Amino acid sequence: MSCERYAGAIVEHALGADLAPDARTHLETCGVCRGRFDEQQRAMQALDAELQQALRFALFHALQAGARGEQRAIAAKGLTGPGYNGHAFWDTETFVLPLLTYTIPEAARDALRWRHATLDLARERANQLGLAGAAFPWRTIAGHECSSYWPAGTAAFHVNADIADAVGRYQAASGDERFEREAGLELLVETARLWRSLGHHDAEGRFRIDGVTGPDEYSAVADNNVYTNLMAQRNLRLAADAVERHPDRAAQLGVDSEEAAGWRDAAAAIVVPYDEKLGVHPQAEAFTEHQPWDFASTAPDQYPLLLHFPYFDLYRKQVVKQADLVLALHLRGDAFSAEAKASDFAYYEALTVRDSSLSACTQAVVAVEVGHLELAYDYFGEAALIDLDNLEHNTRDGLHIASLAGAWIVAVAGFGGMRDHDGALTFAPRLPQRLNRLAFGLCFRGRRLKVEVDQRQARYSLRQGEPLQIAHHGETFDVTGAEAVTRTIPTAPARDLPGQPPGRAPVRRRPGG
Amino acid sequence: MSCERYAGAIVEHALGADLAPDARTHLETCGVCRGRFDEQQRAMQALDAELQQALRFALFHALQAGARGEQRAIAAKGLTGPGYNGHAFWDTETFVLPLLTYTIPEAARDALRWRHATLDLARERANQLGLAGAAFPWRTIAGHECSSYWPAGTAAFHVNADIADAVGRYQAASGDERFEREAGLELLVETARLWRSLGHHDAEGRFRIDGVTGPDEYSAVADNNVYTNLMAQRNLRLAADAVERHPDRAAQLGVDSEEAAGWRDAAAAIVVPYDEKLGVHPQAEAFTEHQPWDFASTAPDQYPLLLHFPYFDLYRKQVVKQADLVLALHLRGDAFSAEAKASDFAYYEALTVRDSSLSACTQAVVAVEVGHLELAYDYFGEAALIDLDNLEHNTRDGLHIASLAGAWIVAVAGFGGMRDHDGALTFAPRLPQRLNRLAFGLCFRGRRLKVEVDQRQARYSLRQGEPLQIAHHGETFDVTGAEAVTRTIPTAPARDLPGQPPGRAPVRRRPGG
Repeated sequence: MSCERYAGAIVEHALGADLAPDARTHLETCGVCRGRFDEQQRAMQALDAELQQALRFALFHALQAGARGEQRAIAAKGLTGPGYNGHAFWDTETFVLPLLTYTIPEAARDALRWRHATLDLARERANQLGLAGAAFPWRTIAGHECSSYWPAGTAAFHVNADIADAVGRYQAASGDERFEREAGLELLVETARLWRSLGHHDAEGRFRIDGVTGPDEYSAVADNNVYTNLMAQRNLRLAADAVERHPDRAAQLGVDSEEAAGWRDAAAAIVVPYDEKLGVHPQAEAFTEHQPWDFASTAPDQYPLLLHFPYFDLYRKQVVKQADLVLALHLRGDAFSAEAKASDFAYYEALTVRDSSLSACTQAVVAVEVGHLELAYDYFGEAALIDLDNLEHNTRDGLHIASLAGAWIVAVAGFGGMRDHDGALTFAPRLPQRLNRLAFGLCFRGRRLKVEVDQRQARYSLRQGEPLQIAHHGETFDVTGAEAVTRTIPTAPARDLPGQPPGRAPVRRRPGG
Repeated sequence: MSCERYAGAIVEHALGADLAPDARTHLETCGVCRGRFDEQQRAMQALDAELQQALRFALFHALQAGARGEQRAIAAKGLTGPGYNGHAFWDTETFVLPLLTYTIPEAARDALRWRHATLDLARERANQLGLAGAAFPWRTIAGHECSSYWPAGTAAFHVNADIADAVGRYQAASGDERFEREAGLELLVETARLWRSLGHHDAEGRFRIDGVTGPDEYSAVADNNVYTNLMAQRNLRLAADAVERHPDRAAQLGVDSEEAAGWRDAAAAIVVPYDEKLGVHPQAEAFTEHQPWDFASTAPDQYPLLLHFPYFDLYRKQVVKQADLVLALHLRGDAFSAEAKASDFAYYEALTVRDSSLSACTQAVVAVEVGHLELAYDYFGEAALIDLDNLEHNTRDGLHIASLAGAWIVAVAGFGGMRDHDGALTFAPRLPQRLNRLAFGLCFRGRRLKVEVDQRQARYSLRQGEPLQIAHHGETFDVTGAEAVTRTIPTAPARDLPGQPPGRAPVRRRPGG
């Protein structure tokens, strides 16, 4: 009878949960329960091994696609299959380049040099659209715009800010001055010019970007998409900063101090809509006033929605294909308060159907930050196993390179809590019950940093290079060498677990499913 | 020397303007000026004759296309040419049916019976889109949706309210109970059901219609398009009224009193956005916050804009292809104050490029109402002469039947000031200087009403039928027979003439002009 009473708690204990004293006493004395506990632990270890294998598989393929790009495009499928006809998208800069930047920085540099090599085509495209600067293509192989459908294609101008973000990240993490002078500065300048001409100031002097499409492809051509505006803001500031560092090169590109000041002004005045009544950020202006999708009447076999409902219907309702506002919470986390992140994440979690493979990893990263560690772990499994388990039933078309790189992002930016806003490296690690240990290395300005995390503490050490200032959960300190700096991990904030649309929660990753 | 001083005033006098006493004295005594005056008058009379011919040509072709529809679609080009491949659009109900309703009502009835005959297809279409009721096609020959492009095509749901409006107009003007029971009621019910399911109530209980396209094809897929919302409001109310008149037939269509009450509630709660700062109605939500089109940098040969700029750019800026909010000012004039009409007209006049032939007639109607009589006269010429003068260089593709019917609309609803809100017939006639006289007949519930207007007064008489209550500039009275009721015409309100985009003003219709 006491076996029965403690059975559930003992299984959870095997998955990492704490055990109450009376249950612990029982476990120590009952052979049956001990056996059950050991069995669960072995099953969990098998899951760990599976995840470790999946992560290695993911890294192998992401690096294979990325590190051997050799100044050609890194395609959505790498060279693993015919999906997307070999085209590259924003996936490259947003999902693959963070991995490359911190592991094989010269591969990130080469990928950005490829973008730079296509600048003339991007300038031509901007000119064709009546815009200044450069408009990089939504999908391409050699730099030409190859997308014909425009509402959720060429109107997704955020690709330009994503490229700028990748330039800024690589620059901060590498200190590669030669790259900045030869390519980075020009990429930043031309994309900043694009944003400055794409947006306009309204009567109150607020800088608006109207009629563009954000990452979520179940919305299109909306005003002031929060992700787009915040990434454009960063783009404008990165460009102005780079101009300040290299006034001579900037002058050669025709940038004077007035132009750069104009970018800073636009960035400062950018519109970030907020729904005061709901206390959340709308994905784009008026998004939260639209009708919520009727999830209750949507059958499981009607996903992905795009194959069963007209875009007309998807576009006008609150339903999210993939992280959009939530991606802003990650990449522009410096623009949101902790409470806003928690409210926004919960709101969009209930609307996000994950009909795109570019979502689970981002949902995992923000889930960790706002305290939903177990949910993040489930998303982690989905991102890492997408192809090994053929989760989207289309692995025969090629691997999901961005999702695989995204598995690394979950490990490092999710459970490692790594952020790199303004070039500073900070960590806020936290592990879910079902993970005992996480370890990863990062390249940063000639250094090799090692981070090891367990349930209670994190250890930071340098394998190579000069002392480095980092932060752990808000506390700043220097890591000076091979001797690890150890810091305890504060308890995650307790928050109500948000729900997903019916049937769209990630598969619970535990023994027996 | 005095000839020179008075020359301009004397020319204007020949075009209808008053003459100051000193100029009048000069004209009476100077043979040269007298000769010039007579020449101008003859030229003006020739223009009058041209316009009269154009109007007859327009009526002939509009009636030819419409009166011989015989329960088939009235195509945009009638049977006069291959343009639009024989397809019919909302043009039929909004531009051709008003003419037919008041001149050959049985032709209007037949056109609506054609729509009714396609109801099953429209129901199927609504069902396909996950909507209730019936969704009539954007372009069709036999009732099937034949439009592939959707942002400015099938998303233009207003066609359904336009059909309902035509039903309501025909019903009020004919009192044709048999039609109402056999076809009209069902058209109203099924379109009301469509709107009820297409819109939704927001958190404040306001009824929103998101993500649809209004008449203007240089905007698409916007929230709360004012024209659409106001026409949907009328649709919902017309349906509820008809259900009240025919509860037995309504019951056969499955309508109970709760459903009809729901339509009235939605109609009462419908969102009509208003820009408080500018004091105008935005065409759709946020429209007035978008960047104005850069007209100054647009060359004359870049019109029509759709052939020279990407839709991406057109959709996100303030530029109007054709009357949209201004069409609401006409057809739903009962929902706007006189001052709002004047401000709104001025605002949209400066943004409207008239790249569609479905615009000049509507701009003329509202121009008259807000007091810009001479501007209206110029638009009148454009609507009436569109094919005789091949103004759009495409008359070889067929005649612009809606624009030709629109010439009748300018005469009757513009200079005659006829409105038919809620089934009441009202007039507010006013002639421009360049028109001496306007006369037209109207069929209304078995009567034949004759209206004659000159610069100073209007005469209303009945050629046939029972006494009829009408209104003249707000004063209600009965017309009882052949003896005309004469009323003077109040002076038009003096308002600043609004401007059009550079180069997009209508051609000034005057001798040598």
